[in-house]
Amino acid sequence: MTRLCRTFQTAPAAVPKDNSAKYLESGLTAEGFEAPDWLVPDIEDGTAPEMKTKAIENTVASLSEHAPSFGGEIWPRIEWAHDSQRTRQRGREQIATLIEQVGGHLDGIVVPKVGRLANVESALSAVAEAEREHGYDDGTIEVATIVETGAAVSDLHRIARLGESDRLAAFVFGPVDYTADLGGRAMNDERPGWPGVLERISNEASAGGLVAIGGPFDRLFDERAGITYYNAPDYADQIEREARIGLDGSWSLHPKQTVQANRVHMPTSDELERAVGRIEQFNDAKRDGTGAVVIDGQMVDEATYKNFANTVATVRSIDDIHPSQTRDYYDGALLDRTRAVYL
Amino acid sequence: MTRLCRTFQTAPAAVPKDNSAKYLESGLTAEGFEAPDWLVPDIEDGTAPEMKTKAIENTVASLSEHAPSFGGEIWPRIEWAHDSQRTRQRGREQIATLIEQVGGHLDGIVVPKVGRLANVESALSAVAEAEREHGYDDGTIEVATIVETGAAVSDLHRIARLGESDRLAAFVFGPVDYTADLGGRAMNDERPGWPGVLERISNEASAGGLVAIGGPFDRLFDERAGITYYNAPDYADQIEREARIGLDGSWSLHPKQTVQANRVHMPTSDELERAVGRIEQFNDAKRDGTGAVVIDGQMVDEATYKNFANTVATVRSIDDIHPSQTRDYYDGALLDRTRAVYL
Amino acid sequence: MTRLCRTFQTAPAAVPKDNSAKYLESGLTAEGFEAPDWLVPDIEDGTAPEMKTKAIENTVASLSEHAPSFGGEIWPRIEWAHDSQRTRQRGREQIATLIEQVGGHLDGIVVPKVGRLANVESALSAVAEAEREHGYDDGTIEVATIVETGAAVSDLHRIARLGESDRLAAFVFGPVDYTADLGGRAMNDERPGWPGVLERISNEASAGGLVAIGGPFDRLFDERAGITYYNAPDYADQIEREARIGLDGSWSLHPKQTVQANRVHMPTSDELERAVGRIEQFNDAKRDGTGAVVIDGQMVDEATYKNFANTVATVRSIDDIHPSQTRDYYDGALLDRTRAVYL
Repeated sequence: MTRLCRTFQTAPAAVPKDNSAKYLESGLTAEGFEAPDWLVPDIEDGTAPEMKTKAIENTVASLSEHAPSFGGEIWPRIEWAHDSQRTRQRGREQIATLIEQVGGHLDGIVVPKVGRLANVESALSAVAEAEREHGYDDGTIEVATIVETGAAVSDLHRIARLGESDRLAAFVFGPVDYTADLGGRAMNDERPGWPGVLERISNEASAGGLVAIGGPFDRLFDERAGITYYNAPDYADQIEREARIGLDGSWSLHPKQTVQANRVHMPTSDELERAVGRIEQFNDAKRDGTGAVVIDGQMVDEATYKNFANTVATVRSIDDIHPSQTRDYYDGALLDRTRAVYL
Repeated sequence: MTRLCRTFQTAPAAVPKDNSAKYLESGLTAEGFEAPDWLVPDIEDGTAPEMKTKAIENTVASLSEHAPSFGGEIWPRIEWAHDSQRTRQRGREQIATLIEQVGGHLDGIVVPKVGRLANVESALSAVAEAEREHGYDDGTIEVATIVETGAAVSDLHRIARLGESDRLAAFVFGPVDYTADLGGRAMNDERPGWPGVLERISNEASAGGLVAIGGPFDRLFDERAGITYYNAPDYADQIEREARIGLDGSWSLHPKQTVQANRVHMPTSDELERAVGRIEQFNDAKRDGTGAVVIDGQMVDEATYKNFANTVATVRSIDDIHPSQTRDYYDGALLDRTRAVYL
Repeated sequence: MTRLCRTFQTAPAAVPKDNSAKYLESGLTAEGFEAPDWLVPDIEDGTAPEMKTKAIENTVASLSEHAPSFGGEIWPRIEWAHDSQRTRQRGREQIATLIEQVGGHLDGIVVPKVGRLANVESALSAVAEAEREHGYDDGTIEVATIVETGAAVSDLHRIARLGESDRLAAFVFGPVDYTADLGGRAMNDERPGWPGVLERISNEASAGGLVAIGGPFDRLFDERAGITYYNAPDYADQIEREARIGLDGSWSLHPKQTVQANRVHMPTSDELERAVGRIEQFNDAKRDGTGAVVIDGQMVDEATYKNFANTVATVRSIDDIHPSQTRDYYDGALLDRTRAVYL
């Protein structure tokens, strides 16, 4: 089954409000299309330096209370930095505490600002050690690395190969840190889009058996004529670009972004209709002895078929986990054909 | 001399028609700009599963009859898959049969769906073994791999280096399978174009001494107001993008595409006129002691010169093999200057 | 401190004019925004074959006279070619002569047309040897390689790692030679832009601690209605693209290009104003216990902060070396806040 990660929603684990776990709790209790596939309690950049201890406490308390009824995966982001031993030491302690206290609720740990291969291996070891010490089976707790330094992109080929045999499970792009690391700039108000790096992340993730997730989109709100609006169109552009090149999901900073990304990373009705229809016709053609057939002007062969099969498999996965989402989104007859068509 | 591969035309080797070798024969007997530089009898995805044996028989029969009078190169595509031992076994048998029966007519074998370095090496060994067994000199029969998996792109740097000393002769891009492998999607009816991967294929092919060929374009026909048209403009866009970044040729699925690709991968008259003219002027300037000269607003030096020299060399290669095409396409006086200019 | 290389201006070291060192001298004596950060006496493609000896003589004479009062760095480009032993031999002699005669005035040597790792190592050795022989401390004279062959791009990952511990200091892109090497073409008057290669150069340079510099723009002049104009807009487009993805500077072929590149690689007033303002607000928010804050619709956290900090650091560097440029360009109060803000 395709692993679902349409949305990777970070929630600051401690904020200076009456309820400092406000965002964490709302992420863990969100419903419908607002519920992220992966929730990321953020102990790193979303939490101020002097709130880190509180952030760990909030994560432990919230997960103990809400994780059992949360439908998605849970992946706290801890502190890490390839160029700071002190930060890595704090990260190791955060990993140890989380696994000790709430290891049973975690799917994995998100490790930011990794560098070259050896640095990633060292993060994997820290998780393995805590896992062993607290009695979890080897590999129970996975690792997602944020790809956001020149060093990590330089070694991406070799880092990805860790995914073939190890606990490494996902690459997440971190364009803001990455741009700072390379000294990039917004010119004429256009920031670097890093299309080449995104292609490589998608490729290496696929070759290494990893999930690939896009980066955050921080221009949450826009203003026109004095009125502030949620900036839906620009976020949609970004996550459509990500979906096009095979990223499995997108980063969300806000419940409204989660709704959008959950939907965009779900095939549209037209897309599903076309996939199911062409597979049905192609299956017929093969029975008649034709390897390639032209349907509505498009040459369809085994390679085209695989793309349509991906669409069907994705919908089946969502339907298995969130039947309310698929029922809400697709016509009933189409959904029946989706479940029935021979892949 | 530049090796010509403006067109890589696949022809299904067996189709459910009265003459099951129809497309194969028409490819081998095409004339003028309809004749592909490389003809690829397709035993893989273009041929239905139960027609594979027939496809081999047709290839053997058609090549025996038509290969001696075919002006281009002949490269059958056999079955192969980095993730299926069974498919590879069928591929090895197909390689052995083809080399045994019609090895003398083959320039090489096209191996699809290769994975990492070791998988490509294993395909090269299969060809080497059959070649040896049937008494051909080492290296007589070359290999072109279709680059269409995350694994192959991940290892592209090392795979390409096989080209420096081995029988590997070409990279062909397979965007449809590649998109399926990475989980990419057509969003808003726009498919991923993989510009980063194409740049890498062009680069590694050049560094490894390989020919580089673009991927198939499957939207053969378009419809407007109820009338179906051959979709020339969109194919032209694709192959122009390929030519721009240094791919030597494009994939053709249809004789009309072959005509287009043969012409687009041939310098235009204006391009040739400019190249010849600037080389003539630059040669004069060098005789006068100038290393760089401004001609019509453009700074021309040794580096610019090399680009113009490429244009001239390509036309000379086409003129050597297909003098009717160059006579048809260029003014006689320009062609004389092209043959005469000092490179 | 950020190393300044906004402009990499090549000047032909010998031209067939009354004063054959004309361009060299004007580069070394340029003032204000016309003064390049790096001046490159060009003994390679900018100088005709029979003028090479004169070019070396001019370089030695001009540097002896003007280098002491030149504010930037001095980097002669010598001859080199990964595929010609003869050219490399000439290059070694040029390196030896320059270091012997004017080593004290050189910041480094620019080595063009390098190939794979071993070829770059051989260029580094040639400089090390001359340096040792003429009594300079190890590493005094650095090397910048021009990345302009498929072989160099193929090995870029490993070549860049030389920057971590060696004299390699910069990557410069050479798109014209690169296009010739890959067989690329201007299609419909649009040349290949190589965005994927540029992203890789920026990434590997950053990971290896190297300066990254863009390629030359040769369409110096444009014509409309019979009048010839300096082509400012198209050069601006290119260097803005380069700045966006983190190249530190751009190649200049002309003093007018130097003025443009010096300015474009300097943050604009608006950019600086925004950077300083958001850092000030973010510093306040952190003091209040917030890790991420929304300012004018944009989510600002540690990662965004780093980008703003880069802007401030760049301006401080320019201000240290060229206070007349920063005074000319920015409002005095803004410049004061730039120097004062806490990073």
